[in-house]
Amino acid sequence: MPDRLSALPTPSLVLDEGRMLRNIERLRGRLRPLDVALRPHLKTAKSVEVARRLLAGGNGPATVSTLKEAEVFAAAGIRDILYAVGIAPRKLDQVLALRARGCDLSILLDSPEQAAAVAEASRRAGDQIPALIEVDCDGHRGGLRPDDPALVAVGRILQDGGAALRGVLTHAGESYGVSGAEAHAAFAERERSAAVAAAGALRAAGLPCPVVSVGSTPTAHAARDLSGVTEVRAGVYVFFDLVMAGIGVCSTDNIALSVLTSVIGRNSERGCLFIDAGWMAMSRDRGTMAQAVDQGYGLVCDGEGAVLADLIVSAANQEHGIVTLRPGSRGVLPDLPVGTRLRILPNHACATAAQFGGYEVLPADPAAGLIHWPRFGGW
Amino acid sequence: MPDRLSALPTPSLVLDEGRMLRNIERLRGRLRPLDVALRPHLKTAKSVEVARRLLAGGNGPATVSTLKEAEVFAAAGIRDILYAVGIAPRKLDQVLALRARGCDLSILLDSPEQAAAVAEASRRAGDQIPALIEVDCDGHRGGLRPDDPALVAVGRILQDGGAALRGVLTHAGESYGVSGAEAHAAFAERERSAAVAAAGALRAAGLPCPVVSVGSTPTAHAARDLSGVTEVRAGVYVFFDLVMAGIGVCSTDNIALSVLTSVIGRNSERGCLFIDAGWMAMSRDRGTMAQAVDQGYGLVCDGEGAVLADLIVSAANQEHGIVTLRPGSRGVLPDLPVGTRLRILPNHACATAAQFGGYEVLPADPAAGLIHWPRFGGW
Repeated sequence: MPDRLSALPTPSLVLDEGRMLRNIERLRGRLRPLDVALRPHLKTAKSVEVARRLLAGGNGPATVSTLKEAEVFAAAGIRDILYAVGIAPRKLDQVLALRARGCDLSILLDSPEQAAAVAEASRRAGDQIPALIEVDCDGHRGGLRPDDPALVAVGRILQDGGAALRGVLTHAGESYGVSGAEAHAAFAERERSAAVAAAGALRAAGLPCPVVSVGSTPTAHAARDLSGVTEVRAGVYVFFDLVMAGIGVCSTDNIALSVLTSVIGRNSERGCLFIDAGWMAMSRDRGTMAQAVDQGYGLVCDGEGAVLADLIVSAANQEHGIVTLRPGSRGVLPDLPVGTRLRILPNHACATAAQFGGYEVLPADPAAGLIHWPRFGGW
Repeated sequence: MPDRLSALPTPSLVLDEGRMLRNIERLRGRLRPLDVALRPHLKTAKSVEVARRLLAGGNGPATVSTLKEAEVFAAAGIRDILYAVGIAPRKLDQVLALRARGCDLSILLDSPEQAAAVAEASRRAGDQIPALIEVDCDGHRGGLRPDDPALVAVGRILQDGGAALRGVLTHAGESYGVSGAEAHAAFAERERSAAVAAAGALRAAGLPCPVVSVGSTPTAHAARDLSGVTEVRAGVYVFFDLVMAGIGVCSTDNIALSVLTSVIGRNSERGCLFIDAGWMAMSRDRGTMAQAVDQGYGLVCDGEGAVLADLIVSAANQEHGIVTLRPGSRGVLPDLPVGTRLRILPNHACATAAQFGGYEVLPADPAAGLIHWPRFGGW
């Protein structure tokens, strides 16, 4: 494995395809007996090559976080896309243009004013834009509570105004803040019960609600009963990261993404090494800061990807990472010469991947050479 | 001004050219009586258009943080470039290739092993690679103390081995952690005295030291005496940001960079608005977290750039920003309808700019229309 990386410059973003494929299969296998569709979130990878491996049949239902993602994935032939960020009315022309090109793009909203704008745009274009209503299951962000009368009001504005009420959606963002399968299963049930209750309220009012969409990586891996749910969304599981390991959804051995870096200096007196992966490479994400084990800006591995005990990127400047033993460690800082290549596991795969223009893929087949998969950014 | 932004999608990165030009002129004017050259750091902007306005005569001496920056700026005709991150020996072929194309690219190091690699590469290529030795003035990162005997040892390895000792360099990174001109002037004097002492030690050993390079944005704006210094480096001053405002180097009115965003929802009960600028747009940089005033993920302005009192992006998901009053505020959350356009001042200009592929420039001439300046990323 290290031989295949030897030609890469540093920093580079390395993707272990074998780990990724196992992560993908793990969630598929988990959801199979629960009898729900999986609508993976493509915001983590922003890569057509990764999407092909994530989606059912290579182009099945997908979730995106920007219209740029919708544009790129629609151009790649993915036809069922949910844009899961509350719609700004000025984006509706772009939504309509994408739909006119044959993509079944659905959108998200949670207010009467958004619903009115979507209905107006639908009538104007002669295209019933399908919209899901966001439901709040845990006070994490936006959305209407299942018992909020606004839910039915929003549904009516859509349905009576010329748009299409596609269903309800919820996301237990607070599940990232708790640890262990028991706690995640409780959040999964909050997602399920909120979404099913909201769907029931809409249906009781005579409104359609074909889609009941729930999900987050922690809840998708812990849900025990998904009665009444039609689809599950999850994103970061494709790569996993230290935040997910920190709450027990995966182990560090499952993390498919790492940043290849070189040692560029050391200060033995202060007990630190310097590497050429700073925050520009790792991102500024400090998602493990509030967890039981703070991993700094990342956990240090050797060039083959084996974790070096207690060694973390404890601080970062733009192009410098500062590697030290974690506080309280009784270990010894390894005496690594300048030029030594290391691999750093990221706190948050979505944020670290976004710092790079592409993935350097270690194929699952150990005999195959490195492959480059481009990724895109922007809006 | 808001009319010129009306056609932009959200989120977009807006650059106020007038503010930028005033920031550039301010530092030039400040350094003029101190009789030193200015070598601006181009890592903040990563834009040829911005570099033209920053550099003396449009292509004068420059500092970069990656060899990608060196490649792009050398291709644009900038001929005197310092790559100010400790060199990894495997990058020397790229350094030599850039030098062979006519760029006077100099590099940075602080260890005998790096010096030996540079000397070896110089001999091999028949090109005396110019290297500066990094000096530690404040325990911030790498570098040798001015009285460390390794300093002269490294200089000799370079000079006797076939490379060229170009000089010494120091950076008071700790100056970002203190506030006010008095404190920054003290750090400026630490930079000056450390660099001058190191240069003296090299010269006393019979080694050349033509360049004595110091700088950071806070110290460059506060230095009172730069005797013995030949050049000053600074970067973020071109745009400024909330971190710099927080330590008194600028005011929020000087910040030239903002993220244009749209309101996409609200929750009156919880006292928050949702916008379509999350951490993917603002970056995860929380540089004001440890300052006297924590600005969250950014300070909210109206569409014309006027600060809205006490309103900050207090939390961020990938594509959602959550806007609230700052803790302790007695203000009232403004009732902004969905679709309202806002502009967010960033904590850290280098990090926020890196999230975008280009700048939407509001020209200093109010009669001129918007201009797009591309920026690049990667390594």
